[in-house]
Amino acid sequence: MTRRTIIRGGLVITASDEIHADVLIEGPRIVALAAPGAHDWSADRTIDATGKYVVPGGVDAHTHMELPFGGTSASDTFETGTRAAAWGGTTTIVDFAVQSVGRSLREGLDTWHAKAEGNCAIDYAFHMIVSDVNAETLKEMDLLVEEGVTSFKQFMAYPGVFYSDDGQILRAMQRSAENGGLIMMHAENGIAIDVLVEQALARGETDPRYHGEVRKALLEAEATHRAIRLAQVAGAPLYVVHVSATEAVAELARARDEGLNVFGETCPQYLFLSTDNLAEPGFEGAKYVCSTPLRPKEHQAGLWRALRTNDLQVVSTDHCPFCFTGQKELGRGDFSKIPNGLPGVENRMDLLHQAVVDGHISRRRWIEIACATPARMFGLYPKKGTIAPGADADVVVYDPHAEQVMSAATHHMNVDYSAYEGTHVTGRVETVLSRGELVIDQREYTGHAGHGVFTPRSTCQYLI
Amino acid sequence: MTRRTIIRGGLVITASDEIHADVLIEGPRIVALAAPGAHDWSADRTIDATGKYVVPGGVDAHTHMELPFGGTSASDTFETGTRAAAWGGTTTIVDFAVQSVGRSLREGLDTWHAKAEGNCAIDYAFHMIVSDVNAETLKEMDLLVEEGVTSFKQFMAYPGVFYSDDGQILRAMQRSAENGGLIMMHAENGIAIDVLVEQALARGETDPRYHGEVRKALLEAEATHRAIRLAQVAGAPLYVVHVSATEAVAELARARDEGLNVFGETCPQYLFLSTDNLAEPGFEGAKYVCSTPLRPKEHQAGLWRALRTNDLQVVSTDHCPFCFTGQKELGRGDFSKIPNGLPGVENRMDLLHQAVVDGHISRRRWIEIACATPARMFGLYPKKGTIAPGADADVVVYDPHAEQVMSAATHHMNVDYSAYEGTHVTGRVETVLSRGELVIDQREYTGHAGHGVFTPRSTCQYLI
Amino acid sequence: MTRRTIIRGGLVITASDEIHADVLIEGPRIVALAAPGAHDWSADRTIDATGKYVVPGGVDAHTHMELPFGGTSASDTFETGTRAAAWGGTTTIVDFAVQSVGRSLREGLDTWHAKAEGNCAIDYAFHMIVSDVNAETLKEMDLLVEEGVTSFKQFMAYPGVFYSDDGQILRAMQRSAENGGLIMMHAENGIAIDVLVEQALARGETDPRYHGEVRKALLEAEATHRAIRLAQVAGAPLYVVHVSATEAVAELARARDEGLNVFGETCPQYLFLSTDNLAEPGFEGAKYVCSTPLRPKEHQAGLWRALRTNDLQVVSTDHCPFCFTGQKELGRGDFSKIPNGLPGVENRMDLLHQAVVDGHISRRRWIEIACATPARMFGLYPKKGTIAPGADADVVVYDPHAEQVMSAATHHMNVDYSAYEGTHVTGRVETVLSRGELVIDQREYTGHAGHGVFTPRSTCQYLI
Amino acid sequence: MTRRTIIRGGLVITASDEIHADVLIEGPRIVALAAPGAHDWSADRTIDATGKYVVPGGVDAHTHMELPFGGTSASDTFETGTRAAAWGGTTTIVDFAVQSVGRSLREGLDTWHAKAEGNCAIDYAFHMIVSDVNAETLKEMDLLVEEGVTSFKQFMAYPGVFYSDDGQILRAMQRSAENGGLIMMHAENGIAIDVLVEQALARGETDPRYHGEVRKALLEAEATHRAIRLAQVAGAPLYVVHVSATEAVAELARARDEGLNVFGETCPQYLFLSTDNLAEPGFEGAKYVCSTPLRPKEHQAGLWRALRTNDLQVVSTDHCPFCFTGQKELGRGDFSKIPNGLPGVENRMDLLHQAVVDGHISRRRWIEIACATPARMFGLYPKKGTIAPGADADVVVYDPHAEQVMSAATHHMNVDYSAYEGTHVTGRVETVLSRGELVIDQREYTGHAGHGVFTPRSTCQYLI
Repeated sequence: MTRRTIIRGGLVITASDEIHADVLIEGPRIVALAAPGAHDWSADRTIDATGKYVVPGGVDAHTHMELPFGGTSASDTFETGTRAAAWGGTTTIVDFAVQSVGRSLREGLDTWHAKAEGNCAIDYAFHMIVSDVNAETLKEMDLLVEEGVTSFKQFMAYPGVFYSDDGQILRAMQRSAENGGLIMMHAENGIAIDVLVEQALARGETDPRYHGEVRKALLEAEATHRAIRLAQVAGAPLYVVHVSATEAVAELARARDEGLNVFGETCPQYLFLSTDNLAEPGFEGAKYVCSTPLRPKEHQAGLWRALRTNDLQVVSTDHCPFCFTGQKELGRGDFSKIPNGLPGVENRMDLLHQAVVDGHISRRRWIEIACATPARMFGLYPKKGTIAPGADADVVVYDPHAEQVMSAATHHMNVDYSAYEGTHVTGRVETVLSRGELVIDQREYTGHAGHGVFTPRSTCQYLI
Repeated sequence: MTRRTIIRGGLVITASDEIHADVLIEGPRIVALAAPGAHDWSADRTIDATGKYVVPGGVDAHTHMELPFGGTSASDTFETGTRAAAWGGTTTIVDFAVQSVGRSLREGLDTWHAKAEGNCAIDYAFHMIVSDVNAETLKEMDLLVEEGVTSFKQFMAYPGVFYSDDGQILRAMQRSAENGGLIMMHAENGIAIDVLVEQALARGETDPRYHGEVRKALLEAEATHRAIRLAQVAGAPLYVVHVSATEAVAELARARDEGLNVFGETCPQYLFLSTDNLAEPGFEGAKYVCSTPLRPKEHQAGLWRALRTNDLQVVSTDHCPFCFTGQKELGRGDFSKIPNGLPGVENRMDLLHQAVVDGHISRRRWIEIACATPARMFGLYPKKGTIAPGADADVVVYDPHAEQVMSAATHHMNVDYSAYEGTHVTGRVETVLSRGELVIDQREYTGHAGHGVFTPRSTCQYLI
Repeated sequence: MTRRTIIRGGLVITASDEIHADVLIEGPRIVALAAPGAHDWSADRTIDATGKYVVPGGVDAHTHMELPFGGTSASDTFETGTRAAAWGGTTTIVDFAVQSVGRSLREGLDTWHAKAEGNCAIDYAFHMIVSDVNAETLKEMDLLVEEGVTSFKQFMAYPGVFYSDDGQILRAMQRSAENGGLIMMHAENGIAIDVLVEQALARGETDPRYHGEVRKALLEAEATHRAIRLAQVAGAPLYVVHVSATEAVAELARARDEGLNVFGETCPQYLFLSTDNLAEPGFEGAKYVCSTPLRPKEHQAGLWRALRTNDLQVVSTDHCPFCFTGQKELGRGDFSKIPNGLPGVENRMDLLHQAVVDGHISRRRWIEIACATPARMFGLYPKKGTIAPGADADVVVYDPHAEQVMSAATHHMNVDYSAYEGTHVTGRVETVLSRGELVIDQREYTGHAGHGVFTPRSTCQYLI
Repeated sequence: MTRRTIIRGGLVITASDEIHADVLIEGPRIVALAAPGAHDWSADRTIDATGKYVVPGGVDAHTHMELPFGGTSASDTFETGTRAAAWGGTTTIVDFAVQSVGRSLREGLDTWHAKAEGNCAIDYAFHMIVSDVNAETLKEMDLLVEEGVTSFKQFMAYPGVFYSDDGQILRAMQRSAENGGLIMMHAENGIAIDVLVEQALARGETDPRYHGEVRKALLEAEATHRAIRLAQVAGAPLYVVHVSATEAVAELARARDEGLNVFGETCPQYLFLSTDNLAEPGFEGAKYVCSTPLRPKEHQAGLWRALRTNDLQVVSTDHCPFCFTGQKELGRGDFSKIPNGLPGVENRMDLLHQAVVDGHISRRRWIEIACATPARMFGLYPKKGTIAPGADADVVVYDPHAEQVMSAATHHMNVDYSAYEGTHVTGRVETVLSRGELVIDQREYTGHAGHGVFTPRSTCQYLI
């Protein structure tokens, strides 16, 4: 017989509603919401959420578990990374399968399926990184859309690695305009940046902080504008990942004012960290090396504003951890050799709740940017991203009053430092269900590798 | 014992969700939503919504029942107007109580309470038109906020009648910045327009179409910009009513890009009608005289776009009907004497559904701009504007496939013409509940005057 | 026989050229320019300009000699003021005749003619301040254009004194669209400002610095935008006087990008002084009270940029001096009673040359904004504003290397303080000719009251 | 003894002045201007300019004589092309020397010197096309600046031919920021365009009009924006050649509003021709194939406006003629094989005078955009571009009332068609002097190959 769970007495928060309601779960699905006292449900398990929030499990649309990069690999496996995600209230990740240059999308996707399958604590899906646009690849894009991999990432940065030129980008966009796929763009002018990197190194500017100086905000804005215009020519929508510069936000806002289907994501590191961190003494700054880079503090206000005005729609983590010891250290004496990436999959929901506490966003907007919009943007809705009859029972009981201090000593990500070490935040995940199963039960891990399954996605739901 | 109603088998649509769910109503409230088959509810009444939409009752945030204007009065009483609203799937109106110059807000509000009480088929609330800002009025504003009249309309048009000068506007905005009220603005430069009216009449330009020519788009944009800057000086939010010109939309978009708490409403007449109607032969154009005026057709695309980009957030009707015979005719030979206003309270939900059919907006956006956002904007949420446990059982069963032709011959508004005469639309209201009571039952009116009650409002929920 | 003067060996600078040339003057006119050595001119008088600049006499398009204001009068008469102007290298002023409310333009203009006639050291012309737009006034505007008073100033500030409402502004603009006149606008929302003044005084904020706080930049920007839109409705050009806020500049820039005939003037005080001066201890700040007010220092960079990008076209002084003792002091304990105005007619050419030295503008741009453009804008060209055969021999020999310190101890304006007391500048007027007569001869005053004559103006030469 | 010429009785027009003056020329230079009657000059030759304009000889900053392109060569040699230029009132051209990929700048420049030397009827200078940025090339740029080749053109179009990638562009810009050079940019995203070309041809779209369709306005705007941001990163000025799309103008305007040193040039073909010409029946459209391409007619108004607002500063011709027979015909059946370029060096001054007649620009602006600004922009001023003592005696006597019809039958360019065949214009060159020598004498050619000499240029005079 199907197991029934009741979550009782909490404040249910979705992207549009805040209601005091009890939630009934049957097997893997939410089956009912009811006003407290208005039902006589019986259940196998009752979770008391009195004084707590009951929110949809987080959807982190940008993670890189086990990603090979710069001669090493991201330190979280799908097993460790999804477990940490669950600890942080995230119940779905969308990770990036990688096509190698000269190989097929299929081969890349199969490789990533093999990495993830049987190892995940929570559900997962894949975007496809397209490194090599050609006639074959374009045909494969159609197939992938059909099997639930409906978004394709291209890079205007990293020449020689992931880089696509404007012609390849245009072709992929044209294809996605036909097959319903969504192009996701790493928007930095990598060709120009590589010149600045070379010049900086030649001047002996090798410390981590120069990583932030050479990857200029203007070159992020330029690439963002270029991607927008290419998408406009192709008649395709566009999703720009990890937007960090207010100048880039301005390009998105301009395009959206024109009515274009252009979307933007930012990440907690851009909202809470800055070039001050990159400039920390010694080699400490290496911990904060990621691309797009952290920006001067002034940019933070612009990003928060854009999250309020909906010029940015999603907050993902770009989780891509590398240990300080042995990994980040590869770049001692040459910032360009520091593996790019930060840990964060466990911290996102909490940091954004802190933003609610700080008055940057409302509670509903918290759920919208962290759960509902990523689910809709990437075709996971209505299974994921909301609390409603019929949806997957991916539910978080969140204690808005608990206090915590972020630290590598206590986090569950497989990385030897925290980007937010010592940060006090108010609010903490208490209990997490994934498809009706307890993964975190009152801050105890009760999940297991292999519970999480690959979740095929439909196409983006924001296109008009 | 409390009456229980089940709405079974429909597609429940809210601002953020579309789910197949049954809805359980107990007495005046929605108490539960459940996946079909996942419950064993019994009920006194079961409504079969198979193949239908189940949507929140519409919230029309801008009506003028029985408004004295131009020597006559709007032809719908609270009784006829709210009945027509119900026929059209609207279950809450926010009407405008009027302060006369030299009198108190209290006196005006009491007058409007007297007009409405016991006469309404659906729930109603009031905004307050402030015609005379002074020390006393400012104090009264605080009191009104406390008793649930939390929004105040001012006019930059109609000198000598409703007009406030910039100093009066600034003072009222400053007060609302303190007491949580929301200033609603009729944004047209009435002082300049009156010059153009006088000059047009002097040139013998007396036909209705000149009404559209003298009330220039630039003068709407100018006043919109001015209201925004005054609100910025006051540190207050702003809601601009009946935006019709794309130039005015551009001012709102600019302000919103700057992160200001600025909101805009448009109306079906600006989305579906144009100066072509004002120029209809004979005196027919008089039927379409309203202020802000209808604009050339090109503006429609800009308004739809703004509804998609959220630069406009609400569609209300500005329902203010005057019969062609005997009322509109007052302006034969002098367009400036034509009473300003159109009927529409019955047509809004249908016209906006047609926009879904036409691809202008999504279904969720339909509910957002017609139900959820007006409810939140004006402090009626979560009683109104959504379908969720705890909310008022204001629910519409909507048939998305029914065909209808709009006509004065069949509409229920007390006015001798339809602004949309002969318009075919797909979609029709089938059944309407107001606080759990059937008001329209399968296209039969089962409501009664006096069912609707005054609904005090909290303050605007969009302020950050 | 006509007297001939040669200015030999200097660098002749006009708005578009910098050439080493000798200048031949016959009677009141320049008659030839020739390369040194390429002529065999004889002359009655030879001025050696070796190592000096030879520039057109300055045209100060905004002065208020003897202006009655706030119960007192500007302290410079036409005699003292034009003499000081000559000392500062200015050879033409355009002063403002004032219409009193209820009186005719003619009466006002005649009054000002009487004040000026026979008293001026240099040539002068008049703008007309229109305080009372009505059918009679509108007709008079046509007449004034015919007799060489081709520009009309209106005020959106100073309700009850100079203030015009938007209808009066629109009517005057419509008239100027027909008769070729140019409307000059004091763009501040005076109605809103008066509310803020009253509130500030009620809070006990009476010091001069509050003058700057209540006259908000946003209210200058608002009025600027409004004036632009009214001009657009009227199909008329617009010249905005004393622009001080970057937000107002942004409105001008936007309008100019749209191709509108919109022009803007700023003044040296906004380029060199700031709210820091208004906040000087004691009552010192009163010296810097003018409207529009001084702005925070950050605005200066925006004004310089706009002068470079031609979003601002003219630098005038708005010279309107009041002595600290006895005049400015009227506002002790109530900033709103401080007479509005600063001395500056003597300082403009030097301060702008300093801007050349500082790299803000080029030498040609110096002459363009200070001589050529005001002359063309107000129909004085080609008599004034350039050095060319046929032009009036209003010529300044300027020593670009001389050093000076500005001070009330040494200036020639009839006012007991200098707004630039102690300011070091590089560059100084050495010799000044007005219509061929020496007014300043190697820093000795050789002019006389009555030399300067009223100069009728044609209409603005910038209209397309 | 030096020959003396007097031009008597004309209206001398420069960028800033319009004066009735006689002009005295001694040898190769203008030595004096004088009011008629105010001098007693004697001369060897007197030119009667009564009723005529006396204007500076035109400076055409963008020509391609004898350019090898697409397997053929531009049909005008330096001899025929400069003779035609003289006929059209242009007395200086700045042509483009071309670096071949893999070769040095020096070699390219020497080649062009050899082509031009001894063959030109008027003076000439060179820009350098940099096709291959590398360490050697960058050093050569410094040398070229020193020898008077102070501007460098790069292409974002034509991959595999002239194309530079963003890194090469950035490096060249950085160098020019140091050495005072000016980067000129062909701003079209050639990588993306090549994709569209390939796709169009694959669809069988081979007619000339498809040339206009694949080279999209958005891809010109994109590249313009990108060039601007790269220049901003480099801290260098930028000059964008042959701007044709209003979307590109908008990018320039935005950058200029930000205060950047960004300049734009358009050409007569974009002001007077359109895609209607490209779509002419048969293969006629090939006559109008150039890049950037002609745009739909609506763009013309935007270009004229930008010329008025100074968002565009220069009108050059991009003269690059190919005969219809035998050259343009290379592209029959494949528009991408049509040699890109139009004839125009002879038509520019007349077409722009027609724009004066049509009210698009003023007379002074005519001279500014056609003579003075190109001279200053490219360091030819004050030798070229003005009429003043000391300047080269490059002077045109222009008859503003003459009527002409443009035609290949009567023009002097070595090309078998006219892009303006049958166009009536008012105004015609009557007499042309180059450094004091008559080149055109009352519509008779009196010049000779070899009169024109290479003119080294100083650096751009518009940088602040």
